[in-house]
Amino acid sequence: MSNQVNSNLKTSSRKGLSRKASRRAAQDYIQNLNNESYPNSEKIFIKGELHPIKVAMRQIHQADTLLAGSGEQPVFEKNEAIPVYDTSGPYTDPKTKIDVHAGLPKLRQSWIAARDDVETLEGVTSNFAKARLANDSLDDLRFANRPKPLRAKKGQCVTQMHYARRGIITPEMEYIAIRENMGRDRVKCEALHFQHAGHSFGANLQEKITPEFVRQEVARGRAIIPSNINHPELEPMIIGRNFLVKVNSNIGNSSVSSSIEEEVEKLVWSTLWGGDTVMDLSTGRNIHETREWILRNSPVPIGTVPIYQALEKVKGVAEDLSWDVFRDTLIEQAEQGVDYFTIHAGVLLRFVPMTAKRVTGIVSRGGSIFAKWCLSHHKENFAYEYFREICEICQLYDVSLSLGDGLRPGSVADANDQAQFAELEVLGELTKVAWEYDVQVIIEGPGHVPMQMIKENMDKQLDDCFEAPFYTLGPLTTDIAPGYDHITSGIGAAQIGWYGCAMLCYVTPKEHLGLPNKDDVKVGLITYKIAAHAADLAKGHPGAQIRDNALSKSRFEFRWEDQFNLGLDPVTAREYHDETLPQESGKVAHFCSMCGPKFCSMKITQDVRDFTAKLDSGEISIKILDETITMTAAEGMALKAKEFNDSGAEIYQPVL
Amino acid sequence: MSNQVNSNLKTSSRKGLSRKASRRAAQDYIQNLNNESYPNSEKIFIKGELHPIKVAMRQIHQADTLLAGSGEQPVFEKNEAIPVYDTSGPYTDPKTKIDVHAGLPKLRQSWIAARDDVETLEGVTSNFAKARLANDSLDDLRFANRPKPLRAKKGQCVTQMHYARRGIITPEMEYIAIRENMGRDRVKCEALHFQHAGHSFGANLQEKITPEFVRQEVARGRAIIPSNINHPELEPMIIGRNFLVKVNSNIGNSSVSSSIEEEVEKLVWSTLWGGDTVMDLSTGRNIHETREWILRNSPVPIGTVPIYQALEKVKGVAEDLSWDVFRDTLIEQAEQGVDYFTIHAGVLLRFVPMTAKRVTGIVSRGGSIFAKWCLSHHKENFAYEYFREICEICQLYDVSLSLGDGLRPGSVADANDQAQFAELEVLGELTKVAWEYDVQVIIEGPGHVPMQMIKENMDKQLDDCFEAPFYTLGPLTTDIAPGYDHITSGIGAAQIGWYGCAMLCYVTPKEHLGLPNKDDVKVGLITYKIAAHAADLAKGHPGAQIRDNALSKSRFEFRWEDQFNLGLDPVTAREYHDETLPQESGKVAHFCSMCGPKFCSMKITQDVRDFTAKLDSGEISIKILDETITMTAAEGMALKAKEFNDSGAEIYQPVL
Repeated sequence: MSNQVNSNLKTSSRKGLSRKASRRAAQDYIQNLNNESYPNSEKIFIKGELHPIKVAMRQIHQADTLLAGSGEQPVFEKNEAIPVYDTSGPYTDPKTKIDVHAGLPKLRQSWIAARDDVETLEGVTSNFAKARLANDSLDDLRFANRPKPLRAKKGQCVTQMHYARRGIITPEMEYIAIRENMGRDRVKCEALHFQHAGHSFGANLQEKITPEFVRQEVARGRAIIPSNINHPELEPMIIGRNFLVKVNSNIGNSSVSSSIEEEVEKLVWSTLWGGDTVMDLSTGRNIHETREWILRNSPVPIGTVPIYQALEKVKGVAEDLSWDVFRDTLIEQAEQGVDYFTIHAGVLLRFVPMTAKRVTGIVSRGGSIFAKWCLSHHKENFAYEYFREICEICQLYDVSLSLGDGLRPGSVADANDQAQFAELEVLGELTKVAWEYDVQVIIEGPGHVPMQMIKENMDKQLDDCFEAPFYTLGPLTTDIAPGYDHITSGIGAAQIGWYGCAMLCYVTPKEHLGLPNKDDVKVGLITYKIAAHAADLAKGHPGAQIRDNALSKSRFEFRWEDQFNLGLDPVTAREYHDETLPQESGKVAHFCSMCGPKFCSMKITQDVRDFTAKLDSGEISIKILDETITMTAAEGMALKAKEFNDSGAEIYQPVL
Repeated sequence: MSNQVNSNLKTSSRKGLSRKASRRAAQDYIQNLNNESYPNSEKIFIKGELHPIKVAMRQIHQADTLLAGSGEQPVFEKNEAIPVYDTSGPYTDPKTKIDVHAGLPKLRQSWIAARDDVETLEGVTSNFAKARLANDSLDDLRFANRPKPLRAKKGQCVTQMHYARRGIITPEMEYIAIRENMGRDRVKCEALHFQHAGHSFGANLQEKITPEFVRQEVARGRAIIPSNINHPELEPMIIGRNFLVKVNSNIGNSSVSSSIEEEVEKLVWSTLWGGDTVMDLSTGRNIHETREWILRNSPVPIGTVPIYQALEKVKGVAEDLSWDVFRDTLIEQAEQGVDYFTIHAGVLLRFVPMTAKRVTGIVSRGGSIFAKWCLSHHKENFAYEYFREICEICQLYDVSLSLGDGLRPGSVADANDQAQFAELEVLGELTKVAWEYDVQVIIEGPGHVPMQMIKENMDKQLDDCFEAPFYTLGPLTTDIAPGYDHITSGIGAAQIGWYGCAMLCYVTPKEHLGLPNKDDVKVGLITYKIAAHAADLAKGHPGAQIRDNALSKSRFEFRWEDQFNLGLDPVTAREYHDETLPQESGKVAHFCSMCGPKFCSMKITQDVRDFTAKLDSGEISIKILDETITMTAAEGMALKAKEFNDSGAEIYQPVL
């Protein structure tokens, strides 16, 4: 394990590179990640007990603590490796050979087959996919080893919710139970386990998450496991209020068209920085082919907004959309392996006029597509009309539904208004319908909401949607900082995560202004990992504080490398440190650049600690430093003073 | 008013410049700020009624709204200029000639003189300042036009609290009343005044802040006006729970020694980005002379931590500190014009051992200096012992006290522990003492605190310290993101600001890692302006939402320039936008880069709005779009559909 910062975590500008060259660069990047990207980290696997599975995690190794004697015969204390949740999949596993053209290993293939409830189709069944397949001009764009799609056998339902309700604990469920426990029972040091009592607002957090608990939560609809049977490459994860708060990042070759390799690179980049799921919002050419590459190479669930592609199929004219086009798109994407669909089925014709007096009207792209269709036809939203048919499709592939908030507020002024909440109530009605079909559901939420109005969103969602998981964008707590909306929204995201939101959709610094580049994606993800973790701490998620404790201990002990490596972004931490103290000696210096060598508060604290340790050790009476001490005990004071000074206040001593 | 982004808001790298050249560059920068730094902005002044004062603000001009007819004979709607709180002082006033060597105009000089309770001293009275003055080798370092220090006449008290308690409304108080109202009665458009009800947790927010209300709050000790009589250059501001949440930034030539000009530039840079007060934490050589330059050129209150300089005077050996050295330092700084002192008088000997078992011990620099002194002498903290003498000094110059939290937690693990709260209780005891002397007081707070434990800090502070204003550093809500602690703390800062914290001390991305550069200072400040504003919105501070509403309206109407200019950082917003749509046409395009020209949700909303406007106008029956609509009214639907389409769904129409 190298302790050097690996360039895998850095963005390399490809400016000036030819199209071809930058495609190759992207591919090389993806395929060469798997020698530790994170400094001093190691991929570990924890075995299952019910199923023959091994759950991937990362553990961060630490240096020892120097207890005494800086120079000759130093005394050291061992610091354990800290296991952390790992979303990066096989890309950071040295034992896996990555080949973008072959795709990732099919982790879940045998699990799915063993259930014996799916059939392998001869080929794709959607008209669109067939047409694309018949088009030879696309051959060089196509993912070569495209698998034949799977579908539930006649009369079967293959959703995790269906299994859960029948009392079956799937390998996916056990994988998640182990993963959510973050391997914290490997950490022996008791001090690292110290954690403050949380305030969970009624969440039902478990001391130890069991596979049975996962099953119960999925059966109850309080959590979902997005896992399309046609996406066997994914490492199972769960979205629910009683589990770790998750983060989603968005990719997609919107107006700027990028190559397929570059799209896959964005995906991998997102998983490297902690994206729990990734939504592919592509609207450009060749969406179908690009999506195939993304799915075959994705270790995390992939979500889409099918109406985007449907709109492409009707050349961007919303009025020309129809249930048939939409239905064909759902099947096309389900057979590729999309794990969840965002569908704005709650945008009803009668709600649209409610948005007319808003400051920012309808800001959801999907929402406005449906709104326009409804107005131009004066018919009810077809996604609402045909919602049961949609559920029947989802049943066959285990596609989860993310019921979109098409009428979410686009400004603080529009927060929590009639249109927003009217839609939310309909999403609750649709949740009930989806559950009739054992289809997994999450509910999307805002948007722009000032702090004092955030909790109402969470409470109302829990009530109206029967505790189906909430999945919010931000919310942004003010509108006045374009260029910093990862922060205006990170503030709101941390709060709603604390209140019970299950997944936070990230916002990048480019929100409202332009398309995020790799650096923006990273900043957005780190900001949201912070928000999600702050929420886990506040809720009191068992074990959440271990990493904080370990990092703080390393900070106090001036183990700079460990402080960098235990953080969310070792590269940036090291770079910032090196700007002030570049030389290697700076990394072991027992002072920090803020106070400088002559004086350091941390160092003085060490003196204080040493002194008190001597008192505790009983060498000298501790009566005098008792809190009942009277400041007049002069001789006693003088004695203590002498001892403190004799003990050499400036040097380190054992804290045994 | 130019609408171009002014380079004043950009940091220019001075790498490779000679010492001399970079000093000159810094000086040029400061002296040439005053042609509008902010694009399309204008300095305005609002006159007082009780006193002949004029209160400086900035107003941001906007373009008109195109209501109809993109091409021939377009119809426009006027958009008012939006006044905003302005901390940048005369530097952004084109009418003021800036000369770093002359210092800023002495705004308050006549106000102070008019009270006829101060005497002009022959010269400085502290031993240290005298010695520096006698040292010819410092001549070229000295601020040439150094004013003679003022001091209260014998038996007089010159604090704003003293005046307030005697029923006197000072010009400072009226200035603040006008400033806090943010000139919002100039905004005529009713829609811009829309604001959600706040949740103030018991704060007493005023619909219109009057000079009398300011007086009452200061008399009650619930707010302070940091305003040393020797700092007449400052524009009065207030720190209190019932006023706008304020932000502090720190400067100081710590380990890296920078020139005096560069220190002043850091100050100016901070005020330009919204710093309400600035703390000078310098610990290098020539602190005394540097401070003089900073004060003479500062439009905002300056705070210091006197123990830092006292420690320099005893060559960094904490044990050698004494009340005499400290006392002389307080007088030295008071006579220069320092507006508030951070003093860690609550770090008592008996509390020190309580920190021994902490994960990160004592992390406050000042706190650990006092802790070490206490231990090595086994005497009680001399700042505590001589606290009444300290108050007597503050009385003479109106120096406010910021009672430091020397035992604040340095990690989430140490939050809200015995040591922290024991100190807080002592700070409450000292608050009462200071108030006996009419000395203004604020209380410093943590630190590192997980979200669920933040409110306890605020509530306990209000109780223990009798509602004296709270001034916190962050708090950081997690320890795992070195390099992003402006964000981990911005989340906590927004919350504690909402709960009632009066001022937020910023944290930069370099926290824990190194010394912030100009870009870090800016990012830290913007992050904290966001936190403070989000808190103002959540509390329901009257008028706070106007800027959000104006910016959102400009966003919805694709007035890109206005969206940039109304934001906290027009430079970055514009740069991000231009990365995707560089050409000027992009600035007026009726679509954003996210959706592209073919489809834009904002544009569709316009269609929806136009359509509903036609309904409202009564041209056609709105019965059909009534919420009681039945989806079977087919002909009606068809009719509406035809009308919508005939109305040309794709083009803009009047929304009159």
